[in-house]
Parts: sequence; structure tokens; C-alpha cells
Amino acid sequence: MCADHVGQTPDYAARRGALRSLLVENGVDALLVTDLVNLRYLTGFTGSNAALLVHSWDMRNAEERTVIGTDGRYRTQVAEQVPDLRAEIARATARRILELAGEWQLGRVGYESHIVTVEQHRGFVEQRTGLDFVPTPGLVEQLRMVKDAYEVAQLRAACAVGDAGLATLLERGLLRPGRTERQVARDLEWAMYEHGADAVSFETIVATGVNSAVPHHRPTEAVLAAGDFVKLDFGATVGGYHSDMTRTFVLGTPSDWQREVYELVAASQRAGREALRPGVKVADVDAASRAVIEAAGHGKLFVHGLGHGVGLQIHEAPGIAKNGTGTLLAGVAVTVEPGVYFPGRGGVRIEDTLVVREGGPELLTNTSKDLTVVD
Amino acid sequence: MCADHVGQTPDYAARRGALRSLLVENGVDALLVTDLVNLRYLTGFTGSNAALLVHSWDMRNAEERTVIGTDGRYRTQVAEQVPDLRAEIARATARRILELAGEWQLGRVGYESHIVTVEQHRGFVEQRTGLDFVPTPGLVEQLRMVKDAYEVAQLRAACAVGDAGLATLLERGLLRPGRTERQVARDLEWAMYEHGADAVSFETIVATGVNSAVPHHRPTEAVLAAGDFVKLDFGATVGGYHSDMTRTFVLGTPSDWQREVYELVAASQRAGREALRPGVKVADVDAASRAVIEAAGHGKLFVHGLGHGVGLQIHEAPGIAKNGTGTLLAGVAVTVEPGVYFPGRGGVRIEDTLVVREGGPELLTNTSKDLTVVD
Repeated sequence: MCADHVGQTPDYAARRGALRSLLVENGVDALLVTDLVNLRYLTGFTGSNAALLVHSWDMRNAEERTVIGTDGRYRTQVAEQVPDLRAEIARATARRILELAGEWQLGRVGYESHIVTVEQHRGFVEQRTGLDFVPTPGLVEQLRMVKDAYEVAQLRAACAVGDAGLATLLERGLLRPGRTERQVARDLEWAMYEHGADAVSFETIVATGVNSAVPHHRPTEAVLAAGDFVKLDFGATVGGYHSDMTRTFVLGTPSDWQREVYELVAASQRAGREALRPGVKVADVDAASRAVIEAAGHGKLFVHGLGHGVGLQIHEAPGIAKNGTGTLLAGVAVTVEPGVYFPGRGGVRIEDTLVVREGGPELLTNTSKDLTVVD
Repeated sequence: MCADHVGQTPDYAARRGALRSLLVENGVDALLVTDLVNLRYLTGFTGSNAALLVHSWDMRNAEERTVIGTDGRYRTQVAEQVPDLRAEIARATARRILELAGEWQLGRVGYESHIVTVEQHRGFVEQRTGLDFVPTPGLVEQLRMVKDAYEVAQLRAACAVGDAGLATLLERGLLRPGRTERQVARDLEWAMYEHGADAVSFETIVATGVNSAVPHHRPTEAVLAAGDFVKLDFGATVGGYHSDMTRTFVLGTPSDWQREVYELVAASQRAGREALRPGVKVADVDAASRAVIEAAGHGKLFVHGLGHGVGLQIHEAPGIAKNGTGTLLAGVAVTVEPGVYFPGRGGVRIEDTLVVREGGPELLTNTSKDLTVVD
């Protein structure tokens, strides 16, 4: 099997195997997985209600007592999507799973304390299963940070849909003065669907003129005008994986100020991309990009972190920010998206999605970052 | 002001006033609101990171120390959307809000224990603010159940978009044999956008033939064929409010079996709608609808609850199910959506969104529920 081989389906059993090693490291006999994204990662199940028990209790027969619970709506779906695991159908799914874990006397059971609410935890304890509940936040997220070949292939496909959608928008002349932010957003989303998006990654941001100074602006009836910065932040999902890209355009001839801001953000973004290497601290990646903007005296106008992990969720670990912790590993997928925002005037953000690699990052969003003037 | 008056903007201060009365009833001096939907309901803020402190500590000057926190990305947005409250800009928003509450010596501070994770709660306690944290689950949700005139107007508009979108799909002949589930889903979503949807309420369900037996089927490349049941479950959002409707069609001449199942579900759905009255237990509404299907011997094929509240979220309180608790009040908006699913064969669900009223429910989804044969 060559390194570039991309399997048609993920190897869920291998992912559960990797999780079992983490459970041993963390000194728990099992993990109750209730986060639906983590559960999908470990099993392929995509329904809206489920719980999963993965144990490290009998490693030789590890899969045998690994059990997924869901409710009656998903009886058919769970059999199709997760044919390799025992499924329990019950209204109170986590409750039923814990009942089994109690019967098996599993002992120390980890739970996703960063996801489980105070009320849910109270329910676990009040069930009197004899289990010892141990907070184990972020274990599956730790695995999810490093993407396998299947996942990278999905991310590539999702980013290609984003590139193609934007290209279609521009080819059709749909980004032009006189149109509203909402119209442009809908047309861009439609173009992504035409190119094979399963869904949009998030509500498309189209921000024109002064609105471009609002980092997370929602499209309004504001009309694009000549001379505006127009910021587009958008993405598509393919097979559950999200793309994320921002490009900022100028409608008509850019002013000197616009060129200056644009080139500054572009230089900052380049510095951020170039800092992506295995073993580098995420805070240092943020710093490399931020330093460029700070040197120009606009540090206070870069009001957010540099980027975030991306995969089954649009925002996942690692967060790349000033106060971010941890180091990058090969195979981690992240965004790099510095921005400079002048309140009441306008702003620029440039964002790519990339995969960290030994020889330098793999760029997944391939739309040009040269200042594009749209007439 | 007449009863039908619909304000252009919600009265957020009145909602906070109603919450303060609940705080007094529940014996807490303040509530830390971290759920973003609850926060939007109370303030109008739509950003992705915020915390709100509402207190009942000094009722005469109640609004003065009511404070919203968010991060730097939303400085402009919070000033525009929430001009009437003090805003704190900080990276760790809840932390900053609790710091203030500690300085003000607010005493017993309720938190949304059904939303707050075990890790977040640990953070609150470890901050050593001197505050006494009290779990107070579901207070804002309790208020949100009963919709005010503004909210009902939004729901009406959202449901009208759903009706119009489906009508357009049918008029254009886009629901017909030979097309795929995905194509139909995209066309229906596009039609809703054309009619003014801000977004879709959830991923549109199009399930044809045997797939119609899967209650929550995701659209695939499956091709619609003559003789199929085709189930469409979809909705639009307008101003943040969700519509939700399901209709099931037959492509071509229905078989006797299809007619029988369809009429059974329609009768069950009618019984559910007719049971909607202020003061009725939600479990009794479920029972009224379920009894019709059980009498026909198909109780086991109705594998889910009857319905759910709908508003700023697609699923909110109250849940209308066998084991649901509580009673309906005038102004509560709910779905009524029984279904009968024959695995491997096909299924029917019929769903409306309605508002509970003294004189009988107001139907918001006005598409016909007669068995529609699409040729």
C-alpha cells in the first residue's frame, strides 16, 4: 500500500484501537463517548442521539463488548452504519450503556467532562451502577487532531469545492456593485452545491464596505458598491469534513490604503503559513503572523486568534492563538487567517486551510491570494 | 395596542424582567447565562461567544448591572445589537463576568447546569470569586416556551416560506421519478431561499421508496421511482425562528397499502392536533395521536415521540412524548408529527407546526395534507 493510498472507508476499528491505548495511559477501564462528532469518528454513525462505550478492559477481545446505543428512530441506520458493533436500542441511551458497564463491573469509567453537562453527570452518579466516574476531557479530540489519509482526502475534496464555488461565482459575474451581501452569499452557496458540497460549513460571510471591518459579519441587504472591500468567508462539507477559506476583494480600483492593508495581511498570512511545521508551538505560529501586523503598528486591529483545527467540525483542536498551548504534529489540519479591521472603515482577512507536513504545509485552498480587483 | 400588534423588534428588557421574577422564585441573586440561544433571546446578540449576567439583586435599578461579555471580534456587533446593556470585552468572557459578580458580592449565582459542562463548572469554582453557584437548569427555556407576538410573527413567516418553497418545487415539476433525493433536497432548499429563507432549519430530509422507512434519512443518490413513497421533512429560518414540516407523497398511483398507511397517519396526526389545548398534559397529546396507530396494530412502528417545541431552536421545550412531562400553555409553539415506518418497505410521516391557542391551535404550516399523487 503506497503512502498516498486513500481508503474508501475509514478504519474505525483502528481508531478505537488507538483510543484504547489512550485509555490505558489515562488509567481508565472504559470511556463513555457521548459527543456525537467523536462518536461518528469512532464508529461512522451519523444519527442525532447515541452513546458509545469503548473499553480497555479485555484488550484481546476488545471489540466484543464495545457497544453503541441509540434510539428506535435509528435502528435501521445503526445496523447499516455500524455493522461491526453491538447496538443497544433504548430511549435513554447513555443510561442503558452505563447499565451494561455496571453489569460488566467495568470499574473506572472515563467520561467527556468537557462535553457532559453538570445535570448529565448528576444522572450518571444517581444511576447507582457501582462505576467510578473519572473526568477525561478531550481524549478523542486528541486523536482527531492528526488526520489519516482518508480524512485528508475528504478535506482536499471539501476545499476543492470551495475553490470551484468561488471561481464559478466570479465567472458568472455575480460579485459586483449593485448586488446585496445576501444575494452574493446565496449564489456562492449554490455554486458550492453545484460542485458537490453536501452542505455549507457554516453560514457564509459576505461583508462589504464598512461591514468588512466586522470580523464575523452576517450577510445583510447592504449593497456592494464600487471602491468597497468585500470579504467572503465560507466553506463546504464533503463526507462530514469542512473546508474554510476567506478571500477579500476590492470592487474597482483599490486606493493606496486598501493596497497597503491588503499587502500587510497577505504578508502576515504568508508568515503564518511558513511557520507551520511539526514540533512548532502553536503560540509561536500565532506570533510569527502577528509580528508582521504589530510591526506595522496595527496589532490592536488583529482582534482574534490566527487559526483553528478543522475536520469533522469547523472549529476543532488545536486553537492557534496567542495563549494557545501545545505543538503541531504532522497531519494536523488547520486554518491560517490573520485579519486587520478598521472600525467604520473596512477590513481584510485572508484564510487558507492547510495540513502540517514535514517538508512544509500542504495547501488545500488553492484560490489565488493576489489582490483581486473585481470590476 | 391591539392583541394582534406585532412589534418590529422584540422587547428584550421585558424578557429580562420576566427572568428576574423567576430568579426571585428560585432563590438566586443572579443567573449566569452561557447558552447562546438563551442569550440571544434575552439580548438580541447573535455572536458565537458571549456570557450574560442577569441579577435580581437591585430590582429598581435592575438593568444597570446587567452585563454582557464577548470577545474582541464582536466589539462592534455587541454595541449595535445590545445598545442598552453594559458590555465587557474579554477573551475569557464568563470569567470576566464572574469576576464582576464577585466584586459586586452577588451571593447565590444560578448557572445553566443543563448546558454548563463539568469542566466549565470546575473553572467557575476554581476562580474563587466568593460566589455560591446554584444549579438552575432550564429557566430561560421555560420563558421561551410561550411565544410572544413578535415570535409568532417570525414563526408564521418561516412556515410560510416552507409552504411556498414546497409549492414552487411541485410547480416546477422537480419532484418526479428519475431525480435523486439529493437533487430534490437542493431544489427545495433553493426554492426556500428564493422565498426569503435566511437559512434552512436543518438538513432537508428527502427519503424515497424503502428509505422513507428511515425516520431521519439523509438524502443520497437514490433515484425516485414510480410507486415510491417520498417523504420530505424540511424547514426555513426567518429572523432566527424555525419552521418544520413533513409531507409524504406517492409518485404515481398509490397502492391500497399506501393509501391505508397514509390515511392512518393522517388520522393520527389530526387527533394529535385536536388534542392541543392549554392545560393539557403533553403525554396526553402524544397518547391521543398514538392511540390511533396502536388501534390499527402498528404501535411498534411509530418509533418516536409525537413532536417538540420549535422557536429559536428547531428542537426546544416542550417535548411531546409518551414520557413527556408538563402541560401546554397558550402561546406554546409545537410540531405534531406521527409516523409509521415499515422497515425495508416504506413509511409515512405528516408534520405541522402549530401554536397552542384557547380556541384551538393556530396552524402555521398550511400545505394540504390530503394524499397528493405526483405524476
